[in-house]
Amino acid sequence: MESNSSFSLQLKVRDYECDMQGIVNNANYQHYLEHARHEFLLTQGLSFAKLTAEGIILVVKRIEIEYLSPLRSGDQFSVSCEPVRISPLRFGFRQNITRLTDNKAIITAMVTATSINTKGRPFLSPEIDRLFG
Amino acid sequence: MESNSSFSLQLKVRDYECDMQGIVNNANYQHYLEHARHEFLLTQGLSFAKLTAEGIILVVKRIEIEYLSPLRSGDQFSVSCEPVRISPLRFGFRQNITRLTDNKAIITAMVTATSINTKGRPFLSPEIDRLFG
Amino acid sequence: MESNSSFSLQLKVRDYECDMQGIVNNANYQHYLEHARHEFLLTQGLSFAKLTAEGIILVVKRIEIEYLSPLRSGDQFSVSCEPVRISPLRFGFRQNITRLTDNKAIITAMVTATSINTKGRPFLSPEIDRLFG
Amino acid sequence: MESNSSFSLQLKVRDYECDMQGIVNNANYQHYLEHARHEFLLTQGLSFAKLTAEGIILVVKRIEIEYLSPLRSGDQFSVSCEPVRISPLRFGFRQNITRLTDNKAIITAMVTATSINTKGRPFLSPEIDRLFG
Repeated sequence: MESNSSFSLQLKVRDYECDMQGIVNNANYQHYLEHARHEFLLTQGLSFAKLTAEGIILVVKRIEIEYLSPLRSGDQFSVSCEPVRISPLRFGFRQNITRLTDNKAIITAMVTATSINTKGRPFLSPEIDRLFG
Repeated sequence: MESNSSFSLQLKVRDYECDMQGIVNNANYQHYLEHARHEFLLTQGLSFAKLTAEGIILVVKRIEIEYLSPLRSGDQFSVSCEPVRISPLRFGFRQNITRLTDNKAIITAMVTATSINTKGRPFLSPEIDRLFG
Repeated sequence: MESNSSFSLQLKVRDYECDMQGIVNNANYQHYLEHARHEFLLTQGLSFAKLTAEGIILVVKRIEIEYLSPLRSGDQFSVSCEPVRISPLRFGFRQNITRLTDNKAIITAMVTATSINTKGRPFLSPEIDRLFG
Repeated sequence: MESNSSFSLQLKVRDYECDMQGIVNNANYQHYLEHARHEFLLTQGLSFAKLTAEGIILVVKRIEIEYLSPLRSGDQFSVSCEPVRISPLRFGFRQNITRLTDNKAIITAMVTATSINTKGRPFLSPEIDRLFG
């Protein structure tokens, strides 16, 4: 799991992601977190788009985000993603957002998810099952 | 507090809020929740935009969202907002999203916030302090 | 066509739609325009989501937007939508955004679209063909 | 101007930018175009955020976008940005979006802008004036 836990993605704030306070709008951090999860899955051979097309629907069940410090225009940051097994049918991701220039902690988050088929029944494909060992 | 606790806003899913799974993207529920909080504040005489212009910065510190069921294209829903006092410097909002046609619970959320001045120091204006009495 | 040409939708700016200039971000007007088009189509018995599920893909080919004046936090506005036939395979929408309090013209736009099947070939269903008669 | 005209930014589609058709939602291309313009301005020593804070408001007046082909999940693309002088008070950007894997033309756009001060009067700072020579 060492290799998994070291996954992180480097991004830069885009000005349209900032709101009238001049900082990244709260909801956009969730976009960053989602994008990092999907990029992590790709490194493990799992494509969110392909899974969706095949009728395997990854679903977020719960999200907890601690907002520690805001990002601003021009900030570069990393988004980490560490997979965690929660129960036979639930898996999760521990995620952090860190500003690159000063290593400032921006966000810490825990995302719990499951996987269902097109009938809405829980269904973890073998690849997903294995990934969250 | 009865009047406060009964605040809710009725909205309808916009198609651009749905993602390739055909359901509202996770982050967009945060947009709905934020919009309901700001509309609630307006009913209490507090404008997020005016507060921002005056240097009173409302900041979300923590958010917990349970995703119970997804919204789809065309769904109409209500977003509730109940203010809660958490500590001298922290206040919060209990929020639910409910589909209108069948009263289905979609989201339950707890949002913890604080208020700071332009120097980043905690500052609750009297109106905010009173609201979360 | 009188009934069609009078379609308009009333909306209110949501704070997350504003950017660091304190005005609605340019791209969000496209969201307003799209939402009004889809609501207009619904009044004509056409659901964008159902069409998509049936493999009829409505596609914007060209958009021209004149930005006349910006919307700000709290502004209420109407978005109009008038269907126009452009050619056998192309149809369009003339759209305006107007602030409600003072009737200020905010946006005027012309959107050209077509409809394709899942193989990417032009395909106007009879309902679409009739609507843009 | 050769160096200017060769500015381009490489990006990758994020899944939340796709809508229920499985392709990037129309409005999001405008986000890509804006981000490329702001990154281009930064390479020329002009920060949109700093200009805004100094009361120099860059305003889009008109946008024309031709949608040639859609982007999908995972696509990598470049967004170009070439400055154009239109009139004493108006400047613009010719922009293209091209898919990287096959050089497919995705978007061609022309964006016309101006610059105003906080009183809403046209004001082109010397740096802006020079850039659009």
